[in-house]
Amino acid sequence: MSPGAFALRATDGGARRGTLTLAHGPVETPAFMPVGTAATVKGLTPADLRELGAQIVLSNTYHLWLRPGLATIEAAGGLHAFMRWDRPILTDSGGFQVFSLESRRALDDAGVRFRSHLDGSEHEFTPENVVAFQEALGVDVAMALDVCVKLPASPDEIAESVRRTTLWAQRSADARRRAETLLFGIVQGGLDERERERSASDLLALDLPGYAIGGLSVGESRDDMERMARFTAALLPGHKPRYLMGVGTVRDLLVAVDAGVDMFDCVYPTRCGRNGRALTRTGDLNIRNAVFARDQRPLEEGCDCATCATYTRAYVSHLFRADEMLGPRLLSYHNLRVLLRLMQDARAAIEQRRWAAFRDGVLAGLAPAREGIAEPGLNLAANPDEQNDT
Amino acid sequence: MSPGAFALRATDGGARRGTLTLAHGPVETPAFMPVGTAATVKGLTPADLRELGAQIVLSNTYHLWLRPGLATIEAAGGLHAFMRWDRPILTDSGGFQVFSLESRRALDDAGVRFRSHLDGSEHEFTPENVVAFQEALGVDVAMALDVCVKLPASPDEIAESVRRTTLWAQRSADARRRAETLLFGIVQGGLDERERERSASDLLALDLPGYAIGGLSVGESRDDMERMARFTAALLPGHKPRYLMGVGTVRDLLVAVDAGVDMFDCVYPTRCGRNGRALTRTGDLNIRNAVFARDQRPLEEGCDCATCATYTRAYVSHLFRADEMLGPRLLSYHNLRVLLRLMQDARAAIEQRRWAAFRDGVLAGLAPAREGIAEPGLNLAANPDEQNDT
Repeated sequence: MSPGAFALRATDGGARRGTLTLAHGPVETPAFMPVGTAATVKGLTPADLRELGAQIVLSNTYHLWLRPGLATIEAAGGLHAFMRWDRPILTDSGGFQVFSLESRRALDDAGVRFRSHLDGSEHEFTPENVVAFQEALGVDVAMALDVCVKLPASPDEIAESVRRTTLWAQRSADARRRAETLLFGIVQGGLDERERERSASDLLALDLPGYAIGGLSVGESRDDMERMARFTAALLPGHKPRYLMGVGTVRDLLVAVDAGVDMFDCVYPTRCGRNGRALTRTGDLNIRNAVFARDQRPLEEGCDCATCATYTRAYVSHLFRADEMLGPRLLSYHNLRVLLRLMQDARAAIEQRRWAAFRDGVLAGLAPAREGIAEPGLNLAANPDEQNDT
Repeated sequence: MSPGAFALRATDGGARRGTLTLAHGPVETPAFMPVGTAATVKGLTPADLRELGAQIVLSNTYHLWLRPGLATIEAAGGLHAFMRWDRPILTDSGGFQVFSLESRRALDDAGVRFRSHLDGSEHEFTPENVVAFQEALGVDVAMALDVCVKLPASPDEIAESVRRTTLWAQRSADARRRAETLLFGIVQGGLDERERERSASDLLALDLPGYAIGGLSVGESRDDMERMARFTAALLPGHKPRYLMGVGTVRDLLVAVDAGVDMFDCVYPTRCGRNGRALTRTGDLNIRNAVFARDQRPLEEGCDCATCATYTRAYVSHLFRADEMLGPRLLSYHNLRVLLRLMQDARAAIEQRRWAAFRDGVLAGLAPAREGIAEPGLNLAANPDEQNDT
């Protein structure tokens, strides 16, 4: 299979089971992509990620552009060699990060000029230089530079973001030079169905190898997010991968798979892992809670990860209360496994035509709040910065 | 071999090659013990420590007493089960930590009352309850509560610390109830040879299974430390293990092995690992230095650790400049390997009767400062708090 081939192996209701073949290997979908913003999934090694069953990781153009910069990564022989990860990498285009800078950027049809959040230095992203950067990194999937708006937004803002996202996607497509790096377009349009349709229609005309649903998880309600993700997914071609950006939680992933989405990324599992919030398939735990101080069970009973096979809640709770580095490491590892295992189980359920029962069983098991148990994670990006794992 | 047996396998000059048999396994000496103050070697798992060749780790009575406390560790089945480390553990008695509290403690022959640095709560250590605590943890080696003085100290202060250390060691010996936990005594006496002789003589009369050299690395010069370690080691019985507390660096370890010391602990490799200081056998590197930004070599050429087998200086340098958690993890791992490998090579050199050549070769290779290369680490405990890995 040549890079970019997407084979749909099974469907069950709206849920899809596919294989996306990329330059560094296959990605079995539905797939969750751990976030490695700065060329590292925080606290974890590539060997850890392989153990966890991660097939592909996401990194961020914006952050890598500023630090360490392209020359350093090129000197290492590309991003894979620099971070020692030999499976696929997808990079976000930096559009989302730059637009969250707000007062520190200036935008026109040519591109966007911005000041670094690190040192105030001036930079410019154009559709062309962002494609060139991602191709120079040697990544498997590059995202086109897009215009994301914070919700709620006015109709004019949304229409303008769709127009410019289309213009930039065209120029991004023209800028491609490297066959091993696939270019995905990003559908915008806020919560406006007509704008979502226009954006999808414009981008589909470019015949890109994959499409993302952008501009969600940026302040809207969960209901709006679910409704719009489902609406937009249905606009996208069935024979190409669909990627919902910035999702998920256990619940959001299930809903989006049900809507026919194939790929996901989110900082939620790793950020929670650093903050003492343990994901489980029955709800999240605040591991610092006193009820866990002498709890000899694993974080999640039945979990197959090395953290759960080795350590107790009592020990992980101690590590967080003592502010010990090992706590975030062990919990990030477990949290990623929860989502990667959820996708693995989802793939099996779709193949075996029992998707609806699987989905409903997991959704029914998500616990309401009880002592020591937090609400299942909500859509976390009230602040758009939250979507960078920094 | 029963717990406590110490077999001296070879000597070469003053250097000794032995095997200390403990309840959880053998310790081949000379041995470096990674420090796991709060029931964790910061950032690393027991599996990492086994990969590194760690035979025994040190943890701290003072810290464990305060957090998580004995009941939590007993509920897990002891310290080994709590932290999931199945090889030997030695715990410090807490004497050193309590005396560094200075204004927050009151001392008499009965024991020492102190306020927690965490929450101000009041506690008391006595020789008896410190032995009972360590035995309840189930550790392989317990240290007797001792009285450490900060240097420089007056002759009266030193004499009084020796007198009370002896009194407490006698009471510690009488308090023993558990054969699997060996009790080591700690020789005090500051920089006064007569007081060191008195302390050693007093403690040797108790016929303990091992002896430590305490009260060094607490503010004195390196020359004084080396001289007094050598003087004190020679006072200790040849058929029992000798442990120099709070050392080392590459240089200090070599000098102390040469003086006939068998065991060591120090926070230096892990603290440096968190702060971007890479240990190598030819001197330390400040990995944040710009000279390393595109350096494609491993941290230390020839090092057999997984960090060096996998990552470049450029990548580790990036991780530290981006304040990424993976940096301290990878560098702590490497730094421990440097000292554990040094001890492994020292053991082989002693066995093969080429100790002097080995020692002189490594000492000659320790580089003076040059660009991007820091001075080989000095005795780090100008502040006694520095000896806790917190």
